Amino acid sequence: MPKEHKVQIIPLGGLGEIGKNMTVIRYDNQMVLIDAGLAFPDEEMLGIDVVIPDYSYLIEHKEMLQGILVTHGHEDHIGALPYLLKDLDVPIFATRLTLGLIQSKLKESNLNHVQATVVQPRDMIKLGVFRIEFIRVSHSIPDAVGIAIHTPLGTIVHTGDFKLDHTPVSGDILDIHKFSELGDKGVLCLMSDSTNVERTGITMSERNVGHTFEEAFKDANERIIIASFASNVHRIQQAITAAYKTNRKVAVVGRSMVNVVAIASELGYLDIPEGTLIDVDEIVNLPGNQACILTTGSQGEPMAALSRMAMSDHRSVSIQPGDTVIISASPIPGNEKSVARTVDRLFKLGANVIYGSINGVHVSGHASQEDLKLMLNMVRPQYFIPVHGEYRMLVKHMQLAEQLGMERDNIFLAENGSIIEFTRHGASMTGKVTAGKVLIDGLGVGDVGNIVLRDRKQLSQDGILIVVMTISRSTRAIVAGPDIVTRGFVYVRESETMLDEAKEKVRQTMARLKDNHVTEWAVLKGQVRDALSKHFYEKTRRRPMILPIIQEVE
Amino acid sequence: MPKEHKVQIIPLGGLGEIGKNMTVIRYDNQMVLIDAGLAFPDEEMLGIDVVIPDYSYLIEHKEMLQGILVTHGHEDHIGALPYLLKDLDVPIFATRLTLGLIQSKLKESNLNHVQATVVQPRDMIKLGVFRIEFIRVSHSIPDAVGIAIHTPLGTIVHTGDFKLDHTPVSGDILDIHKFSELGDKGVLCLMSDSTNVERTGITMSERNVGHTFEEAFKDANERIIIASFASNVHRIQQAITAAYKTNRKVAVVGRSMVNVVAIASELGYLDIPEGTLIDVDEIVNLPGNQACILTTGSQGEPMAALSRMAMSDHRSVSIQPGDTVIISASPIPGNEKSVARTVDRLFKLGANVIYGSINGVHVSGHASQEDLKLMLNMVRPQYFIPVHGEYRMLVKHMQLAEQLGMERDNIFLAENGSIIEFTRHGASMTGKVTAGKVLIDGLGVGDVGNIVLRDRKQLSQDGILIVVMTISRSTRAIVAGPDIVTRGFVYVRESETMLDEAKEKVRQTMARLKDNHVTEWAVLKGQVRDALSKHFYEKTRRRPMILPIIQEVE
Repeated sequence: MPKEHKVQIIPLGGLGEIGKNMTVIRYDNQMVLIDAGLAFPDEEMLGIDVVIPDYSYLIEHKEMLQGILVTHGHEDHIGALPYLLKDLDVPIFATRLTLGLIQSKLKESNLNHVQATVVQPRDMIKLGVFRIEFIRVSHSIPDAVGIAIHTPLGTIVHTGDFKLDHTPVSGDILDIHKFSELGDKGVLCLMSDSTNVERTGITMSERNVGHTFEEAFKDANERIIIASFASNVHRIQQAITAAYKTNRKVAVVGRSMVNVVAIASELGYLDIPEGTLIDVDEIVNLPGNQACILTTGSQGEPMAALSRMAMSDHRSVSIQPGDTVIISASPIPGNEKSVARTVDRLFKLGANVIYGSINGVHVSGHASQEDLKLMLNMVRPQYFIPVHGEYRMLVKHMQLAEQLGMERDNIFLAENGSIIEFTRHGASMTGKVTAGKVLIDGLGVGDVGNIVLRDRKQLSQDGILIVVMTISRSTRAIVAGPDIVTRGFVYVRESETMLDEAKEKVRQTMARLKDNHVTEWAVLKGQVRDALSKHFYEKTRRRPMILPIIQEVE
Repeated sequence: MPKEHKVQIIPLGGLGEIGKNMTVIRYDNQMVLIDAGLAFPDEEMLGIDVVIPDYSYLIEHKEMLQGILVTHGHEDHIGALPYLLKDLDVPIFATRLTLGLIQSKLKESNLNHVQATVVQPRDMIKLGVFRIEFIRVSHSIPDAVGIAIHTPLGTIVHTGDFKLDHTPVSGDILDIHKFSELGDKGVLCLMSDSTNVERTGITMSERNVGHTFEEAFKDANERIIIASFASNVHRIQQAITAAYKTNRKVAVVGRSMVNVVAIASELGYLDIPEGTLIDVDEIVNLPGNQACILTTGSQGEPMAALSRMAMSDHRSVSIQPGDTVIISASPIPGNEKSVARTVDRLFKLGANVIYGSINGVHVSGHASQEDLKLMLNMVRPQYFIPVHGEYRMLVKHMQLAEQLGMERDNIFLAENGSIIEFTRHGASMTGKVTAGKVLIDGLGVGDVGNIVLRDRKQLSQDGILIVVMTISRSTRAIVAGPDIVTRGFVYVRESETMLDEAKEKVRQTMARLKDNHVTEWAVLKGQVRDALSKHFYEKTRRRPMILPIIQEVE
C-alpha cells in the first residue's frame, strides 16, 4: 500500500502567547514557513533582551524548507529572521515595504546575501509542491498580506495580522473578493488572528485618527508632539498631513522612527509635501504653532525619545508649557505603568497630554469580534485553528466559530509545537515537535536558562552576601577573613553589628567543623551558608543569596 | 501685633500616586491626621514588600497630634497604622467595621493597647480646637465615611474614597443632605478622591454585580468559584445571596478572605443564612451544582488561593472541567499580565472563566466624572485640592472643577509634603515639609534605599561575577586564586573558556600592578574590575556586577 499523503500545520510560535509568530506548513517532505517573529521578555525574564522561537525543528529538516513567506514587517513577524538566517540559507518572499524593513534588519546583522523576492497581493508563486497566493489585508503597517497555500490535499489560509478598514489611509481594502473566492472554492483550514477577539463590535478605521489629529492640531497654539509606533506608517502619514494642513513643519525624532520614515519614503509609502520635513535642530527654533515633532516612546520605554523628553533628558527637545503631546498608541499589556509615568511627567512639565483610546488618538490594527466573524464566514473553512493569541483568546475565538455553526471537532486549540495533520480522511492533532522560547541576552542566544533566571530573581529580591576566607591547608585554620561583602541586601553602614555577629558565626562554624575533622568543601560551605542564612533571616526576614568562598594556602 | 491664626493642610501621602493616603490638618499648634495607608511597591522597588509614607513630620510634632481619623478599612488608608502606632501614642477614631479591621491588624503587630473610639456617620466629636463630623459615603467596603473638620477659620471637607450608589447593597446612600448642608453653610476647602477622574459618566451601582452573579449562578451546572478583594464585603454578600438563592453552599478560601468574613459576620455586616457557610473540605465533596467557593487571588498574586488553583497547586481545591470561575475585580495597574496568566491557566484546566468589566462582574468603588462634579457642586468649596491620584489625575480633576466655574487660583495642585495654608486673608502654598516613601523589606523599615535598589536592579539584569584571590603580604604574589564565581550571568559549563581567559587577564593585571609597585587596594580592585568588565562586555555584551575580593596572608 502506498504511503498516505499528508499536510501538517505546525505552529512554532504565536500560540498561547502574543508574539514570536512562526508557522510551518508541511506536505510530505516539503515545507514552507510563515513568518519568523520575536517576542519581548515578560517580567520574569530578568535581563533578557528579546525572545525568539526554538526553531530546532527547522534546523533538523532544513533540506525540506522551500522558503519563508512573510505577512508584514512587524517585529513579532520578522524579528527572528536575523537569527534564523544565520543558521539557514533559505529564500524570503514578502511585499515591498515588508522586505525593505527586513533588509534594513539583516544589514545590521551583516546578512547581506539573503535571497529575497518581492511579491504583490494577488501574486501566485510556486514553491515545490505548494502554490502560494498573497492576499491584501489591512493592518497597522502598510503592505500586510494574508497567505493562501494550495496543497494537493487542499487550501490552507493564514490571515496574518489583520483588520477590516473600509476607508484605509492608502491603498485598497482587505481583499474581500479573494477571501470569498477561496471560501467559494473550498478551504481546508483557516488560521486567523485572535489578538482582539476579546473586543466586541468592529475595529474603527485608521482614518478616524486622522480626523482627531486635525482637530487637535487646530486647537493647539503651541507645538504638537506625537508619539506612536515607528512602524505605523499610516499614522505617520496622517500626522504629516495634519501638520501640512495647519502650516506646521515636521521633525522626526527617535532612531527607529527615523529609520522607518527613511525606508517608507524611499519606497513611496509616505507622501510628504516638499519642505515639510525638517531637522529637529531647526524645528526647535520655529514658533510653537509652526512645529510638529514625531517621535518614539509611546510605550514609555525608558530609553525612547518621548520618555527622555518627559525626564528632561533629551538631547534636542525640551518640553515647554503649552506643548500638546499626543500619545497615539495603546499601552501593550505590561507597559501601562511606564506609560502612565510618562504622562504624569509630561503634565508636570506643563504639557497638555492627549492619551487613551477614548480620545480617538489611536485605533487598533486587529480585527474585533464582528470582523472575525466576517472572516470566518467568507472563508468558511472545513477546519479552523485560532492563532496569534494567549490561550484564553484562542478559546474565545473557538467559541466565536462555534457560534457561527462550526463543529467543535473541526476546531483545533493547538499549542506551539502541535502537529495538526490532514489526510484525505480527516484531520487530527497527532503529536508534538520541539518548540519553546530561546532567550537572547546580549550576544548570548539561548545561554540564559532557568538556573540563571532563578538566580537573577533571587538576587533582585534580597541581594547577595558573599563570605570569603582563606584557610591553611595544613592546620585547617582560618588565616585570612572571614570577610563579608553584600550587594542589594542592606546598607552596610547601618548593619555593622549584624555583620560582625555573622563573622563570629562563621568562625564558630568553621571551628566546630575543624574539631570534627570535617574537610569536605561542600560540607564546609553548606554549613556556613546555613548558619548565615538562619542568622540573617532572624535579623531581617530576608533571604539574600549566600555565597561562601574558601581559598586554601600552604 | 498678635500672631495671625492659620489652618494648614499637609498631605503626607496619596498625591501624585495611588496609595499610602495620609493628610495632616493643622490649626496653629494642634493637628489631626486623616488616614495612614500603605502603598504596594512599583516594579522598580525590587524585593520591597510595602511602602509607607515618611511621617517624620508627625514624629517631630507629636505633641500637637490630637487623633487619627480613619475614613475606611482599606490597606491604602489603614496599612501604615501598625508602623505609626509603634512610634506614636495617639487615639484612633473610625466606624465600627473599619475599627474591626484596624484592630485585627494591630493585634498581628502586638499593638494591643491603642486607644480607639467607634464613631458613626453624623457623629460629631471634638478634638482640641477641631469639631469633626463623619459623613457616610459609598465605597467598595462598608462603613466608609468622608470627614468634615470645622476649624475657627472654616470647614474642611475630605471625601475619603467614595462613589455615589443610589441602590447600595446595604445601608444608606452617600449622605447627600449633609454634604449639601455643609456646602450651604460654606466650606473653606474640599479634598476629593481623584482615582476615577479619567472615566466619563457615572460609576455603576454595586447592585448590578449582584444581578450578574445571579444570572451566572443560574447558568452554571457545575461549581462556581468567585475571586474578589477580601475587603469587598458587599461583593461577598451578593455572592452569598446568589448562592443561597440557587441552593448552593459557600466555602471561603484564602487567609485574608477568611479573616474579613469572620470580622464582618461578627460585627453584623454580613447576612449569611444558617447553614450556608461550610468548610472547604466539605464543599469539595458536594455535587458541583451545590457548591460555591469564595476566594482571594483576583489580582493574580502568585501566592493567593485562585492563583494556586490555576497552577494546580492548592491544598484543597482543584479546578475541574466545567467549573465557572468569576474574577470579580479589575486588574490594578501593573497586575494585568498576572491576571491574564491566571485566566489562561484556568481555561487550560477546562474552567469557564468570566472576567473583565464588560461582563458586569465588577464595578468600581470610586466616583467617575459626573459623580465628581456632583460632589464639587454640593460642597461648592472656596478652595479645592484634588487628592488620591497620580499627577495626571489631579490635573484632570482640577480641569473638571474649572469646567464647573472654579477659579484656577482657588485650586491647589499639591504634592506630598506641600503646605496649603489658609488665613483670614486667603490661601496659598507656602512651602514643604519632609515627605516621601519609606520602603519596608522584611523587618527592615527604611533600611533599603537607592543604593540597595540600584544594586538589586543591576544584579537582576546581568547577575554578578566575583573574583577572589589571596596575595602574600610580603611578596605581593598571588598565593591562591584567582577564582571566579558567577550567579545570574551565564551557564558556567558553557563558558569555561571565557572564564579561564578572564582569570588570565586578572593574573596579567595583578602582575603589571606588582611590577609598578602599586599596592593600594582600591587601585588593585579597580583595575581588575575594569579589565574584567571590558573582557566580558566584548564576549557577551552584558554588564554583570563585578566584585573583586582580595585577601592577604603572611
